[in-house]
Amino acid sequence: MVVPEHGPVLVSGRFEPAEEERIRAAAAGAPVDFVRRLGDRAELLAAATVIAGSPNRAELAAASAVRWVHSWAAGVNGDLAAGLDEHPAVLTSSTGNGAIPLAEHAMMLMLMLNRDAPRWARAQAGHRWERFQHGELNGLTCGIIGLGHCGLDLAAKARAFHMQVLGVRRRTGLPCPGVDAVHPPEDLHLVLAESDFVVVTAPGTPATAGLIGEPELKAMKESAHLVVVSRGGIVSDRALLRALTEGWIAGAGLDAHGEEPLPESSPFWELPNVIVTPHNGATTEATRRRGLEVFVDNLRRHVQGRPLVNVVDKSAGY
Amino acid sequence: MVVPEHGPVLVSGRFEPAEEERIRAAAAGAPVDFVRRLGDRAELLAAATVIAGSPNRAELAAASAVRWVHSWAAGVNGDLAAGLDEHPAVLTSSTGNGAIPLAEHAMMLMLMLNRDAPRWARAQAGHRWERFQHGELNGLTCGIIGLGHCGLDLAAKARAFHMQVLGVRRRTGLPCPGVDAVHPPEDLHLVLAESDFVVVTAPGTPATAGLIGEPELKAMKESAHLVVVSRGGIVSDRALLRALTEGWIAGAGLDAHGEEPLPESSPFWELPNVIVTPHNGATTEATRRRGLEVFVDNLRRHVQGRPLVNVVDKSAGY
Repeated sequence: MVVPEHGPVLVSGRFEPAEEERIRAAAAGAPVDFVRRLGDRAELLAAATVIAGSPNRAELAAASAVRWVHSWAAGVNGDLAAGLDEHPAVLTSSTGNGAIPLAEHAMMLMLMLNRDAPRWARAQAGHRWERFQHGELNGLTCGIIGLGHCGLDLAAKARAFHMQVLGVRRRTGLPCPGVDAVHPPEDLHLVLAESDFVVVTAPGTPATAGLIGEPELKAMKESAHLVVVSRGGIVSDRALLRALTEGWIAGAGLDAHGEEPLPESSPFWELPNVIVTPHNGATTEATRRRGLEVFVDNLRRHVQGRPLVNVVDKSAGY
Repeated sequence: MVVPEHGPVLVSGRFEPAEEERIRAAAAGAPVDFVRRLGDRAELLAAATVIAGSPNRAELAAASAVRWVHSWAAGVNGDLAAGLDEHPAVLTSSTGNGAIPLAEHAMMLMLMLNRDAPRWARAQAGHRWERFQHGELNGLTCGIIGLGHCGLDLAAKARAFHMQVLGVRRRTGLPCPGVDAVHPPEDLHLVLAESDFVVVTAPGTPATAGLIGEPELKAMKESAHLVVVSRGGIVSDRALLRALTEGWIAGAGLDAHGEEPLPESSPFWELPNVIVTPHNGATTEATRRRGLEVFVDNLRRHVQGRPLVNVVDKSAGY
């Protein structure tokens, strides 16, 4: 077993004592310090060779000894990836930790949009027995933009709902169980035109920024719905607002937004055909625990000189 | 091919011209009349050997020639089954026609309860970015009471949500794909005690009336939710109200209710841990079309002297 040099570990976040112990055990004797924010103690930041958290540019500049940064987020934010672009440190993410609850959230939004659940909520508030005809997902087509952990889990769920499942993926050669047809990004418009539900599960990267704009929303069916659960900025908010108010598409379920928090004055809150949630689809205790497991596993690997998992391709941004 | 005597067919309901043509074609020359209500034309009712609709007791008494009654409902209501109990006419139902959208509805209610979706709806109405931690269905246990068409479809969906699936079924010998453990009705309390979500999909019959009362609700976990999508009366409303207000269980999603329409004064509308929908889970155009297909298929079978499908066991009530 190769044991490389491994120095102090600096961890941001809040953990239970048993969880702190697990991290210390994985560090195998290297000093581990826990802080609320990485900048809280400058001398620890300067000495750390391993950082768990999301250092901003100033913190990164101060972390002169760092060799590996682990992000608690599933998708590393663009700033972090960009800040590390020229930096020799390895970047890993917690990708996969929130994939399943995020797919659950997408499925909930699809069901609520397809059935107009907000109408039942209004009727309940008014004690009104208001029956109406609604849709069923059964037999519809679900187009998934991004077949990572979340997209593939969503594909299996959509199939259990008897939907036809189409997917767009950059790396089309990888196996995609549950997906009826996997298309390369060049076929995006084809997938958009065929889908009754378009679900954006792709990471926020330079390549996906603005991927869904006016031409893409116009390529969708007027009866179709858009669901966004991964990152804002992939969909152009300006084009989406027009699509929703001018009837290019039927409605949207939005957990990820171009501007977060969504400002109080945003028109999206009020649109009758939109369900807004506050980038909250994967916020479960289990997501946090799974993220911790990724770091503990990687810390063991780091100490033992084995390859890390979830290494981010800094140029791709995920 | 045996061609038995087959006389006039009386059909209640509204159909498109092409649908009426399909029914006439299946009748193979026997006269077919369409009425809004079965009692609309007494002479047709008296002459009909085949009736599609839900005759009440008076209409049944007037239908002196009837040999087969087809109900447009998935579950025949208790009155109809009871009224035909001593009658020689065969009773068939449209069972299965709404199973899939009903399973979709159950899944939507489970997701909305597990994530507290009503809280997001309130925040959206107030333009508030209000993030909170919620649950995920992943890893929870779903107990399905009644493994008919709907229950089995729900089982497959729950499995795609990575749930453990338990089921209660009278006929335990039948195959139940997607169900981890099938229990006989005697084991009901065991299933209730283990489940995080209990979903009632059983038909309304003398055997299921009042099946879920105070002891059953007390057998459930305090953290568990009850979802009812098949028929009211299976759950005791009085016991359920106590369970929801006294914390025996965490909440409920109710599409089927003991009294329908749910009166304006019902306390269920106002409970903060309850989502009410107006027995509306399967009200889709596709459900109606599938029901028509069942009748057309059966009418062909009847004319050709072949065995009918979806024959109701009048003593069992489904």
